[in-house]
Amino acid sequence: MMGHSECLPNWLEKRSELSPERIALEFKDQRYSFLDMHNHARNWASAFYSEGIRRGDTVGLLAASHADTVFILHALFYLGVKVVLLNSRLTQNELRFQLDDSEASFLISEQIYKDQVNFLSNHGITAFIKEDFLDKNCGEAPILHEFVLEETATIMYTSGTTGKPKGVLQTFGNHWWSAVGSVLNLGLHEKDTWLCTVPVFHISGLSILMRSVIYGIRVILHDSFNEKLVNDDIRNKGVTIISVVTAMLNRMISNLGDQKYPRTFRCMLLGGGPAPRSLLEDCKLKHIPVFQTYGMTETSSQIVTLSPEYSMEKLGSAGKPLLPSELYIELDGKKAPAYQAGEIVVKGPNVTKGYFNRAEETHKALRDGWFYTGDIGYLDDEGFLFVMDRRSDLIISGGENIYPAEIEGVLSRHPHVFEAGAAGFSDSKWGQVPYAFVVLTQENAVSEEELKEFCKQYLASYKTPKRIIFVKELPRNGSNKLLRRELHTLLEEEQ
Amino acid sequence: MMGHSECLPNWLEKRSELSPERIALEFKDQRYSFLDMHNHARNWASAFYSEGIRRGDTVGLLAASHADTVFILHALFYLGVKVVLLNSRLTQNELRFQLDDSEASFLISEQIYKDQVNFLSNHGITAFIKEDFLDKNCGEAPILHEFVLEETATIMYTSGTTGKPKGVLQTFGNHWWSAVGSVLNLGLHEKDTWLCTVPVFHISGLSILMRSVIYGIRVILHDSFNEKLVNDDIRNKGVTIISVVTAMLNRMISNLGDQKYPRTFRCMLLGGGPAPRSLLEDCKLKHIPVFQTYGMTETSSQIVTLSPEYSMEKLGSAGKPLLPSELYIELDGKKAPAYQAGEIVVKGPNVTKGYFNRAEETHKALRDGWFYTGDIGYLDDEGFLFVMDRRSDLIISGGENIYPAEIEGVLSRHPHVFEAGAAGFSDSKWGQVPYAFVVLTQENAVSEEELKEFCKQYLASYKTPKRIIFVKELPRNGSNKLLRRELHTLLEEEQ
Repeated sequence: MMGHSECLPNWLEKRSELSPERIALEFKDQRYSFLDMHNHARNWASAFYSEGIRRGDTVGLLAASHADTVFILHALFYLGVKVVLLNSRLTQNELRFQLDDSEASFLISEQIYKDQVNFLSNHGITAFIKEDFLDKNCGEAPILHEFVLEETATIMYTSGTTGKPKGVLQTFGNHWWSAVGSVLNLGLHEKDTWLCTVPVFHISGLSILMRSVIYGIRVILHDSFNEKLVNDDIRNKGVTIISVVTAMLNRMISNLGDQKYPRTFRCMLLGGGPAPRSLLEDCKLKHIPVFQTYGMTETSSQIVTLSPEYSMEKLGSAGKPLLPSELYIELDGKKAPAYQAGEIVVKGPNVTKGYFNRAEETHKALRDGWFYTGDIGYLDDEGFLFVMDRRSDLIISGGENIYPAEIEGVLSRHPHVFEAGAAGFSDSKWGQVPYAFVVLTQENAVSEEELKEFCKQYLASYKTPKRIIFVKELPRNGSNKLLRRELHTLLEEEQ
Repeated sequence: MMGHSECLPNWLEKRSELSPERIALEFKDQRYSFLDMHNHARNWASAFYSEGIRRGDTVGLLAASHADTVFILHALFYLGVKVVLLNSRLTQNELRFQLDDSEASFLISEQIYKDQVNFLSNHGITAFIKEDFLDKNCGEAPILHEFVLEETATIMYTSGTTGKPKGVLQTFGNHWWSAVGSVLNLGLHEKDTWLCTVPVFHISGLSILMRSVIYGIRVILHDSFNEKLVNDDIRNKGVTIISVVTAMLNRMISNLGDQKYPRTFRCMLLGGGPAPRSLLEDCKLKHIPVFQTYGMTETSSQIVTLSPEYSMEKLGSAGKPLLPSELYIELDGKKAPAYQAGEIVVKGPNVTKGYFNRAEETHKALRDGWFYTGDIGYLDDEGFLFVMDRRSDLIISGGENIYPAEIEGVLSRHPHVFEAGAAGFSDSKWGQVPYAFVVLTQENAVSEEELKEFCKQYLASYKTPKRIIFVKELPRNGSNKLLRRELHTLLEEEQ
């Protein structure tokens, strides 16, 4: 039975049989049961099928966090389609790159992204607007009654340390095991409700949707993060779990003031980088059950989470690898002893099988079944992970990952830019924001404003450097590798 | 990552790292944390290793439900040994057959089974008595840090409908998926405690031990079933879940009298065959949360369980197949429509890969990934399974099918019937006719004729027992399952 190609019943379809009447999704006070969700997914699947979308195709999805988006996602799984989840804040050129690179045959989007859709249509992509399907009468599509765990379900792009973004392959098995690893740590209560205010095109949001159908629990979906609405829902709607990043938690705590969360609220799942101790201590005082966690697109969300009994004692740690996963710290090609920092290396059935069409990068990141995260951390003498730095140079701004190399790549294309370096700088609102340091081909050849405008053509606005500082040269090491962390020193000198 | 040979961290070792201080096991008021359990398992592994037991060996285990037995089981997994779980009620010749048939190289047992061990030693089996290892000083054995899901962990013998017992292969993956399927239905609370009073050499008991290390929950182990002690523990020790069969539940309810279980007791998992409606209705009145379930050695315990929200509405149903599993009813080589009885056919990653060294029987039972249970049942129009009978127990009388469970269900409704068993007996006219065996609540409370009249109110006359024989107790196996075929012996004794 095990072995060759292991499969499981189609999760949502099965869930709609097991608990048809349970609430699956709430969005803007509309409620959908698992049976409703299944029916919506079937209808969307039929619509897409009538347009020629078939099993094995790759389809881009550019959509906001709406109820329809959830149905459409499941519809695409029903059809056996690989879904490329597109960040809606990307520029038209970035979107085009990801669709081309993933060899997507179709794009599904919605009216609010009309401009992007037009641009992409003009560049040879067959694009659909969801609103155009309304009232269309389609035959019934054949849907998958089983998911093959080894097959790719989703593709998400990340930039990594260098060069162009890479498409991370996430299989049905990756998503399944991620959900299972999480439930064996966090438990599962009959009335669990997960509040999703993070984008569903990120693994943090998508993994909530996956858990919903695997666990049979309700998701309350917000189309964006608003701390007041979040606090209202936690206090009044029976929310038991929410996924947040530091910047969100900061704003929630500030908005909460002297009020409290109900005792049924059992998990504040805090990811997206190390959290400041002061914030964690604040939460401790307010009896907010914070579970720090560490994960990434390549691990299909959490891979390390702090167990309930240690949430206070090991403040600041991301915890231990979940039951199905393993971890060690590598330093100079060997396992590092306790308290020695090195590269975090992980393994588990939730870990990606690689990057689409990137044999070399895949080979570099995945060795003997171990995934080299590029992140820096150490284990204490009890095996608790402390993450020090994400991919050393990664900038995390309001929960979004920004890779300096991508900003540098764009700046370097400008005819007057000789070379560029980017780094994250502290920001009270976003945690970090990107700054860039530029060496020009000749002095005053271009202004800061002009360069920012240039960046905006290619980079989502959150990636566009908030400041561009002109310098004579960039700090480099002996092998001429850019030392991004020394850019901070440059700023001080410049001032 | 997925694919070739998927593996997971050694469960107990991993659990001892994740939650070392949590209580794993309580036995006769001794408590063992997960770290204690890991240390005990390591020590036993070292002892066995020093005696020459190696990865790949097959080892018989003949032991009662003691704490040591749990440690020894894990020790054998640590060594990568296949464990043959031996029923302690077997005769010496039956034990010898199972050890020979499974090609076991070693037997591990304890002092209380000295006679069996001597007999088996005299027949060429290398046997150890656990008490002989005390105070022995051994080096440290190399233990498995990962379990390969496809590898066989345990072998359990079942007789099936005909012929010699067959060794059911249960892989690490089977046990893992069984635990995962269960948790996605029953949920998982931080303080869950599973009371185990069923033998650990049966899948009902073994699966509790597996869940304990996979979920990180406490097991309270009893060496035998005693309704008073069980009720005491449920009422005083924070038990949240217990696995029972009908006969056990009957005795528990009778012993409970007017008292109640605490509200934290959340699951009475009732397996081992169809339960009489009267008992389920009794439980409903007492607010006891009964989850009927259906499973077998070949499915590594539960495969079908009634979801919480239907436990009352679908009284008498075993529920729907757990999330990772599938099921249909086959009749005359085709899928049967709703309400048509036929053979129950199942599929899922918890299903055995076959019988050891029995290519033909494996081939017959497993076709295209589907396992033919030999059991009879039907699905209602909402897909709920109603198990009617084990095929072997089917009574065929004048061409009509009679399911013993139906007769037993009717008899159990009578206020003076404590429990009942029915079976087919040869008849020159009809081929077979049904007889019933009844244990009364008190002697002479009701006559045979009165009971027959009672039955006729609910059963077609061909289903009404031709004889009703009053007995002191019904024949049951180690897990308290009614042995209908042994009812024939009762008749001979009675005469």
